[in-house]
Amino acid sequence: MYDVLVVGAGIIGCSTAYHIKREDPSLKVLLVDKYGAAGQGNTARSAACFRNFFYSETNFLLADSSVSFYMDLQSKGVDLKLKAISYLFLLSGRQYERLKPVIEEMGRRGLEYKVYDAGELEEKIGLKANVTVDEEARELGLEDIEVGVQCIKAGELDPELLVKYYEKEYRDLGGEVMYNTEVKRLLFEPEEKLGMPGEPYPWQRAKVAGADTTKGEIRADMTIVAAGAWSYQLLDPLGVDCLTKPKKRQVFVISAKSGKLADLLRVKGFNEEGCLPMTILPNGIYVRPNLEEISFWVGLGDELGRAFKLEEDPQPEEDFYSYGIYPVLSKYMPHFGGARPASAFAGLYAVNSLDAQPVVLKEPGLIVATGLSGSGIMKADAVGRIAAALYFGREEAELYGGGRFKVGDLSLSTRRVQRELFVI
Amino acid sequence: MYDVLVVGAGIIGCSTAYHIKREDPSLKVLLVDKYGAAGQGNTARSAACFRNFFYSETNFLLADSSVSFYMDLQSKGVDLKLKAISYLFLLSGRQYERLKPVIEEMGRRGLEYKVYDAGELEEKIGLKANVTVDEEARELGLEDIEVGVQCIKAGELDPELLVKYYEKEYRDLGGEVMYNTEVKRLLFEPEEKLGMPGEPYPWQRAKVAGADTTKGEIRADMTIVAAGAWSYQLLDPLGVDCLTKPKKRQVFVISAKSGKLADLLRVKGFNEEGCLPMTILPNGIYVRPNLEEISFWVGLGDELGRAFKLEEDPQPEEDFYSYGIYPVLSKYMPHFGGARPASAFAGLYAVNSLDAQPVVLKEPGLIVATGLSGSGIMKADAVGRIAAALYFGREEAELYGGGRFKVGDLSLSTRRVQRELFVI
Repeated sequence: MYDVLVVGAGIIGCSTAYHIKREDPSLKVLLVDKYGAAGQGNTARSAACFRNFFYSETNFLLADSSVSFYMDLQSKGVDLKLKAISYLFLLSGRQYERLKPVIEEMGRRGLEYKVYDAGELEEKIGLKANVTVDEEARELGLEDIEVGVQCIKAGELDPELLVKYYEKEYRDLGGEVMYNTEVKRLLFEPEEKLGMPGEPYPWQRAKVAGADTTKGEIRADMTIVAAGAWSYQLLDPLGVDCLTKPKKRQVFVISAKSGKLADLLRVKGFNEEGCLPMTILPNGIYVRPNLEEISFWVGLGDELGRAFKLEEDPQPEEDFYSYGIYPVLSKYMPHFGGARPASAFAGLYAVNSLDAQPVVLKEPGLIVATGLSGSGIMKADAVGRIAAALYFGREEAELYGGGRFKVGDLSLSTRRVQRELFVI
Repeated sequence: MYDVLVVGAGIIGCSTAYHIKREDPSLKVLLVDKYGAAGQGNTARSAACFRNFFYSETNFLLADSSVSFYMDLQSKGVDLKLKAISYLFLLSGRQYERLKPVIEEMGRRGLEYKVYDAGELEEKIGLKANVTVDEEARELGLEDIEVGVQCIKAGELDPELLVKYYEKEYRDLGGEVMYNTEVKRLLFEPEEKLGMPGEPYPWQRAKVAGADTTKGEIRADMTIVAAGAWSYQLLDPLGVDCLTKPKKRQVFVISAKSGKLADLLRVKGFNEEGCLPMTILPNGIYVRPNLEEISFWVGLGDELGRAFKLEEDPQPEEDFYSYGIYPVLSKYMPHFGGARPASAFAGLYAVNSLDAQPVVLKEPGLIVATGLSGSGIMKADAVGRIAAALYFGREEAELYGGGRFKVGDLSLSTRRVQRELFVI
């Protein structure tokens, strides 16, 4: 019998398990995962970038505090391969017109950024801002890039190292783990069993009492579902909506060991690493330098037309690169001309289509923490603290750095999140 | 090629199709349904009660205007078997303490209600308010009834007659129908087909272009998904979240042709029909008189523990009546002592767990109207007008009676609904 059973040893489960144990090391906590180690699900398939550059206060509080925590870890010698290479949003004139007041407001709040005009970008990076002179680009519906907005407190890290940090700290505090253990269903039981067929009935006091797993029943006073894209599979049978659906996201890896791509990778003047920032094109295609691998990771989150679908082993689609990404990418960044992916991978986002913010809610014997919508890495520390605060029955969570966050703001019944306006 | 294809001839689809055709009879509109007639899905399995007694302005605007429309139809000679028998909420002391300020505020806004004390209720109805003298009732966790709150603008109607009204008006305006036609998937296509495998890609302008059905492809400029509990099956493959999951709801029919139940059915003093109001017990069990059938319809919406699950032919569970409803019902209403259901039926609610309000949203070539969460009948007219306004590109819909409703308030991206505080 455990005090707490955490289902899912991805970044959210590990952070939550750690923060609970940190607050009360006397608790008997078990972390289970279907894979053989922590962070082997969609955490490992993340593009693993982070930024604090958000307009929504909800986004800002969750990301900024988490990013500060990771940066401080890195500077204290915990190697997360964290590199603050910044983000560079390349915006069309239309986008910049819409976003300028938003960005300026973010600046007034103290968020650090720099704006580059198209000429500077062409010179520094060698990108093609004025694409519409090209008929093919016009047929692709591309717009000229007018400015680049560089967000400073932003970069990339290694998600497996981050997961391992939380897992080790958790285990050092006495936290238990059980891997290769898949949860088949949550146990939902009356507090007082009367032996009626089909119980519990609504007039009975009932609660989630643990989980049935491939290694047998595990009973716990509180079960925390932090299973990301899989969460709904455990919660639907219970009639609990976590507002989260799985959607495939793909990353294509393009070698940058030589030629123009090597030059692009090592563009100077943006950051201390002397590399291209994580760069986002006007239509959402991102180009993430990977200095360890000497490659670029390229991706694009497709919305309409990309199914919500749970796949055990989602596969990247070469056609998606060839027809969906390459034609656009090679127009703006001619460096990619002729480049093919050396490899690729795909994972599942846990998408909350309502507001793309985390869902952290409580039912009897149950806490749910999911819906990170692709920002699991950059918000994991805050969400772990919020789920822990909910477990300990507090109305507010204290985030890293001392900021406070109202736990109920991420629930369904009292949900209150600020919409993100910095959206390209 | 149609201007508008409406998927689902339930109450929401029929109301939407009618209101679009009413506004512009020149449009070529097709209504399809997998069943052989309108309203044969979950509309037919509804308890079909209505009230305007809501605290939330969203709920009030949607329900009050729809109810007024139905009442005016009935009084103009369109027989919906509408009977304004009122609702009677039986509240425990704890519930009344919490809800009293809410109810009083609703009264100040002009909503008509009456309050009865426990003694009056015992005398008029013969119910047992003081149940906690009974040890068994205490073991069931029951609380004494302190008051009854009767909501006046409320009652019941025949949902099939209402659906048929909308369908006939729609057809009289030239609207087409095609029944026994199941939509297999929505067509999502680029505006300009280039013949690439897997198109459309995100840089292509693309839209929903109709649906593939068991009777072949049907092409339309706008496709409206009003398929209730089934909606997500069509929308998930497109990556559109309608915030709606299916949940089984059951109705048990108990004959009231003789004995104490006949007396209960014909209780006087509450309404012009001389019958028991639609009555709700403190724990949510409802008792709906059916004067046509000379019976009671009894049900209970179970939340935690009742799965979200799509079933083609959901079945009522006798155990749910015997163990979930009967023990409680027979304590408060001894008239039901020994009563067993003569029949029963079950349907699927289209549940929006976030706020239980409708979801009406637009994507290219697509409008979605679902998520009614069990109040489809009582809000159908307003939701049909709102979906029509969205189709015609207006920001506001004019509801019956002249009230105005901001269409975007029911979308996901600019959702703004007021939470319901009158919840027992």
